[in-house]
Amino acid sequence: MEKGEVNKMEIDFQDKDIISITDFTKEEILYLCQQAQRMYDLEKNGKRYDSSHQLTNRALASMFYEPSTRTRTSFNTAIRELGGQRDGFVGTEGTSVTKKETIRDTIKMMEANHFDVIAMRHPLDGSLQWAADVADIPVINGGDGTNEHPTQALLDIFTLYMYNDGRLNGLNMGLGGDLAYGRTIRSLSLALSHFDDITIRWSADDFLAMPTDLTSLLESRGINVIREQTVKDVMRQSEFYYMTRPQLERMEGVTQEDVIRFMGDARIDLSKVDGLDVKVMHPLPVNSEIAEIDYRVFFSSVQGFFPQAENGVLMRKALLYEMLKYEGYTTFSGSLSSALEHGNNRLQRTGKERVNGVLYIDKISDGVVIDHLVEGVGKQIADELGLEKRRYDSVIASLSEHQKTFLKTNLPELTNRELKRIALMSPEATINIIREGEVSEKFVYLLCQNDNCVTRVVNEDIPLKFYDDGTMRCRYCRQPYEIQTPKVSEQELATFRGSLPKSIEPIHQH
Amino acid sequence: MEKGEVNKMEIDFQDKDIISITDFTKEEILYLCQQAQRMYDLEKNGKRYDSSHQLTNRALASMFYEPSTRTRTSFNTAIRELGGQRDGFVGTEGTSVTKKETIRDTIKMMEANHFDVIAMRHPLDGSLQWAADVADIPVINGGDGTNEHPTQALLDIFTLYMYNDGRLNGLNMGLGGDLAYGRTIRSLSLALSHFDDITIRWSADDFLAMPTDLTSLLESRGINVIREQTVKDVMRQSEFYYMTRPQLERMEGVTQEDVIRFMGDARIDLSKVDGLDVKVMHPLPVNSEIAEIDYRVFFSSVQGFFPQAENGVLMRKALLYEMLKYEGYTTFSGSLSSALEHGNNRLQRTGKERVNGVLYIDKISDGVVIDHLVEGVGKQIADELGLEKRRYDSVIASLSEHQKTFLKTNLPELTNRELKRIALMSPEATINIIREGEVSEKFVYLLCQNDNCVTRVVNEDIPLKFYDDGTMRCRYCRQPYEIQTPKVSEQELATFRGSLPKSIEPIHQH
Amino acid sequence: MEKGEVNKMEIDFQDKDIISITDFTKEEILYLCQQAQRMYDLEKNGKRYDSSHQLTNRALASMFYEPSTRTRTSFNTAIRELGGQRDGFVGTEGTSVTKKETIRDTIKMMEANHFDVIAMRHPLDGSLQWAADVADIPVINGGDGTNEHPTQALLDIFTLYMYNDGRLNGLNMGLGGDLAYGRTIRSLSLALSHFDDITIRWSADDFLAMPTDLTSLLESRGINVIREQTVKDVMRQSEFYYMTRPQLERMEGVTQEDVIRFMGDARIDLSKVDGLDVKVMHPLPVNSEIAEIDYRVFFSSVQGFFPQAENGVLMRKALLYEMLKYEGYTTFSGSLSSALEHGNNRLQRTGKERVNGVLYIDKISDGVVIDHLVEGVGKQIADELGLEKRRYDSVIASLSEHQKTFLKTNLPELTNRELKRIALMSPEATINIIREGEVSEKFVYLLCQNDNCVTRVVNEDIPLKFYDDGTMRCRYCRQPYEIQTPKVSEQELATFRGSLPKSIEPIHQH
Repeated sequence: MEKGEVNKMEIDFQDKDIISITDFTKEEILYLCQQAQRMYDLEKNGKRYDSSHQLTNRALASMFYEPSTRTRTSFNTAIRELGGQRDGFVGTEGTSVTKKETIRDTIKMMEANHFDVIAMRHPLDGSLQWAADVADIPVINGGDGTNEHPTQALLDIFTLYMYNDGRLNGLNMGLGGDLAYGRTIRSLSLALSHFDDITIRWSADDFLAMPTDLTSLLESRGINVIREQTVKDVMRQSEFYYMTRPQLERMEGVTQEDVIRFMGDARIDLSKVDGLDVKVMHPLPVNSEIAEIDYRVFFSSVQGFFPQAENGVLMRKALLYEMLKYEGYTTFSGSLSSALEHGNNRLQRTGKERVNGVLYIDKISDGVVIDHLVEGVGKQIADELGLEKRRYDSVIASLSEHQKTFLKTNLPELTNRELKRIALMSPEATINIIREGEVSEKFVYLLCQNDNCVTRVVNEDIPLKFYDDGTMRCRYCRQPYEIQTPKVSEQELATFRGSLPKSIEPIHQH
Repeated sequence: MEKGEVNKMEIDFQDKDIISITDFTKEEILYLCQQAQRMYDLEKNGKRYDSSHQLTNRALASMFYEPSTRTRTSFNTAIRELGGQRDGFVGTEGTSVTKKETIRDTIKMMEANHFDVIAMRHPLDGSLQWAADVADIPVINGGDGTNEHPTQALLDIFTLYMYNDGRLNGLNMGLGGDLAYGRTIRSLSLALSHFDDITIRWSADDFLAMPTDLTSLLESRGINVIREQTVKDVMRQSEFYYMTRPQLERMEGVTQEDVIRFMGDARIDLSKVDGLDVKVMHPLPVNSEIAEIDYRVFFSSVQGFFPQAENGVLMRKALLYEMLKYEGYTTFSGSLSSALEHGNNRLQRTGKERVNGVLYIDKISDGVVIDHLVEGVGKQIADELGLEKRRYDSVIASLSEHQKTFLKTNLPELTNRELKRIALMSPEATINIIREGEVSEKFVYLLCQNDNCVTRVVNEDIPLKFYDDGTMRCRYCRQPYEIQTPKVSEQELATFRGSLPKSIEPIHQH
Repeated sequence: MEKGEVNKMEIDFQDKDIISITDFTKEEILYLCQQAQRMYDLEKNGKRYDSSHQLTNRALASMFYEPSTRTRTSFNTAIRELGGQRDGFVGTEGTSVTKKETIRDTIKMMEANHFDVIAMRHPLDGSLQWAADVADIPVINGGDGTNEHPTQALLDIFTLYMYNDGRLNGLNMGLGGDLAYGRTIRSLSLALSHFDDITIRWSADDFLAMPTDLTSLLESRGINVIREQTVKDVMRQSEFYYMTRPQLERMEGVTQEDVIRFMGDARIDLSKVDGLDVKVMHPLPVNSEIAEIDYRVFFSSVQGFFPQAENGVLMRKALLYEMLKYEGYTTFSGSLSSALEHGNNRLQRTGKERVNGVLYIDKISDGVVIDHLVEGVGKQIADELGLEKRRYDSVIASLSEHQKTFLKTNLPELTNRELKRIALMSPEATINIIREGEVSEKFVYLLCQNDNCVTRVVNEDIPLKFYDDGTMRCRYCRQPYEIQTPKVSEQELATFRGSLPKSIEPIHQH
């Protein structure tokens, strides 16, 4: 599709959350590029403030749980130039986070303060989808963990669009720097997958290499991904080279010296760009100690990252305008949707033979049997549940012939927090709820397998939800889930997957 | 008094400081509830910004010496929706506090910046009264230590008012959580004492129990305070249950595990509210680790704390409007009222016999005798005063037959800081100022007995002032003062108390 | 020159950076005082907001790398009352600084956010000149290290102007407190040097004494500088006494107790000002623990520092208005001026005899010889350059008869960062670049000698520039440079100095 062909009738950003770049259609991306270009034209023609009454009486809440100058400031500039207001916090010092407030409650508190939109950054994957589920007002993902940063992707695409006179098909992109830990790389390449004939070339040390799951995903979306021997090879064949900062803060047990070694030949200096007709982009900031881009490149005509930074302001201005240009406002409901109370992560099991049979040392009338435990965690789980302290019986048994450990107790039920704690210690245990000597429910409490997923933080009380778009995925971080143990039968799994929604439908707003 | 009966002629918030909920009359509280309801009606009828030109050219200074998202943001929203401006700081990093600036000077600095009103939070009791004394512009207490948080009380009352269709008499309130350390409980229950037939029920571990002085105070104000056996007993008999977060940050030597133990049965879960017609309130944030309210209660119809949060915005909007709706502004005077220079805490003593008599080892011509010292601190005080370093004589004597220790020196006078330091080390010592061999003045320098009172911080240079409303009290934290030693005669005390003002009169503004 | 005589035709603050008070002419200072007085008159006549539409659609960026409440808030108030917007950061937590972003890139990022002016504070000397060089929009120095704080000087001068009914000639100024570490003292006294018959008196402990270079500078500018025996002597002869806070945060290895001892008699209490017709000024905050001004002086008629604080708002309001009152705005260029790429700090050497002669153990074809090294650092430099790791040869030799150490390597060239690192370890080494067995270039890479100069931070990539206004000076911190070694001949130095610009010309804007 070429510039100008966008069908505007179908495009509507009112009440839409901006969580992942994959939620955008090609048409929406092109439309936003056109609107951002309109902002660009105003800006460069001395009409910066022609828009300054468009969002009067609109207010943006910034909720930056992680440091940010760039993203936060550009959202601020965008709403400011549109005539709106802003407030919020950055960092967790000086906020209720230190008082252990959940994301859910902080979102509600901000909503009670009559904001019209929230821009949020958080260190945990999936936190933004959760925020969007909770909020009745739209939420913009300003970066969730290593996951996504969709407005960065939009501004990157807009930068390509501007340099290329609106052409986005057929691009030859080079990617460099930290391809393993940066959310920017992920979001940008996914955005590019909307367009035709895209080739992505990259070269990096294995430690910083593009994850194979991302490569597969991009290839499945029609992008030609090529790993080259050297950065110079990439650079020579690229119209744009997208460099990124090694995300040291996300690498465990790695020093800056290590990273400089991993970067090795990947640093961009004049020798790599000399004579080439390439634009070097970078989401910024450049780490001046690692100097992934040598300062002399900053003075070269290949430098494209400062214009890219301004494009961030223009794109966010376009996006906020499109989201908030409508009449009226959302009043605060003061309640939580019941859709936030329960998850869909209980995989029902059907085989009952063992429970009432010989396997269990003695029958219990009412209580819980936790079966298929990871060896050795039975006692820990009993402690975690405080069984002794709360004066409940517990029997922990390992039946080596059946290769299983189980915990039996007359504790009448398990709360969601308890189920989550059990699942953290022993994934995919089978939970049997016993009523009057019979198994009344038997299920596996599934937990997202992504260590950095927000749903794994017990005290956030986020109900786990999966969906199945061919792959079974966590609603929040969108990572695939793969059954780890052979205890769950194919039939049980198929039934469970059949019960899941096929996509991330928005939680019904009030 | 019923809704609608308020005599508006007497109600005027111009130039009023908002320090304690007890400073409000019943009529003022009802009037503010009506105004906040007007804000509510506008908000819910799509007229949020009808007020957006009412406080154009007004500016709010936020001075948050302690973390705050909620209170700070709601003040910000309030002034924003009224069309005003705001600025300020949160936390002490990045401010002049790290450069040891006094509250007094920080207030003056903010005044020099042409703000119209200050909202301030500070960890020390009484700091807000001091701020109000210093400032020529009105000051709103956003929380001073464990003392007061009057706008929280106003929004709580407003929440009751809204849920109850304007009725505040005859309420059955339950209180729960941390009744010992929370300023919210104190301010709310004092606010309720304006109304008739109020019953407060509570149940808590002794560690978190309602302080007996508060119980007495409430009873003296006509509230029926009942300690029940269990939280469930309280819940059953209450229309509203006001839950609070354990103020861990104010408890010394207590871990979160301890608190969870103290809380025990006090946590609110579904089993406690099931089938009851009660509204659960909470000033928020809920501590998600302690989970004083279980998350499932958040989804129940008893949940009243999110609407309460929005009421905070509406009430503060009403309050700021009422305070600032007047024409003109206060110009900065650039000087300090002389009323801030001197305290009224020198309890004059009259008995002179001992000073010139045998008791003192030798007479001195000019100097100071500090008498009735706590045993063993004489040397410390001499060091603190730097007598040796400054080449003054000192004699420290303990006359066991008279059970007294005294310090005699030819240091000609004591500064207020020195008097305060002496009083901190040895409360209620008698200070004798000797001139030409005679006692020219003999007094006890009284210091507030509340350890957390702002007046005890020597370098803040706050002159101690007492008042006597039947009980002798510190002007700043309003805590009672009780003579500890028998040295002060009843006559001396009576004379002193007779000299005190009967109430906290505002410091004369310029 | 008397009040009212300013020739306004020559005065124009559009696009001017405000870096040093010495960049102002006498006429400009007087003009700004007149404009600030106009702001004062409006303020005191109830017309605070008459100016509230003058800078609509202007935005101020605050970049405070060091704590500030006072300066930051007064800039905020100034732009607010003029109807403009503001944004920015304070402290380095929560910003890209923790991600090692350079000043240069942070400035560009802020420019990309469409601000019209930057107010910045930074701990390093010269950082503000660098910021101004980088920025296409004007930059205001809010304090750079121990160097300058020109708007403080302007407001101080304005305070004198107001108290003295416009007279600035013939003043008798006393200076006190920390004359050694405070940038305020430096900026104010330089500002005073524009006026006639100025006498500065001071008295201080040697540790806090006025630096002799400042004394000389002031005397060369016509100020009569007198060191008195006692503070009282100073006070008695002064119309104004300018007190300052000991800058503990800038003193290494000195405790607060030390400072209190150094201050000794220098603290201002009532006994020092009693009966005198002097105004005590102070940039604030007063350190309440050191109490360089006793609190009782705050209540005396000599107190002039609170009005001075308000004058800060009024002067900044005048300054911002004068800088930004023009039509149009600066669009973001997105590129860096090539003038920022290269320095002028390579002092070319001409003597070639030794290089090809006996001195060098063997000739090399292509590489670098670093000569005249500080003894013992040869190995360190080889390590720093990573010669072994990068598989380059290196020979380190000490020829005692010639008193020289040198390092020879076949590394083909040295980057600017490498040159800077060498110069930090071994100042004024001679660098010989060898091409085809011949010395193709021989130079000394000069580095600013001020330890706190921003140019010495290698990863900031600031090209060193000198200028020569009779003294050879660093463009950034403006400190003099003096050749340390006898290796550089007078002729070589003269040629170098002859090549330098005579003053700090602004970097050409785009």
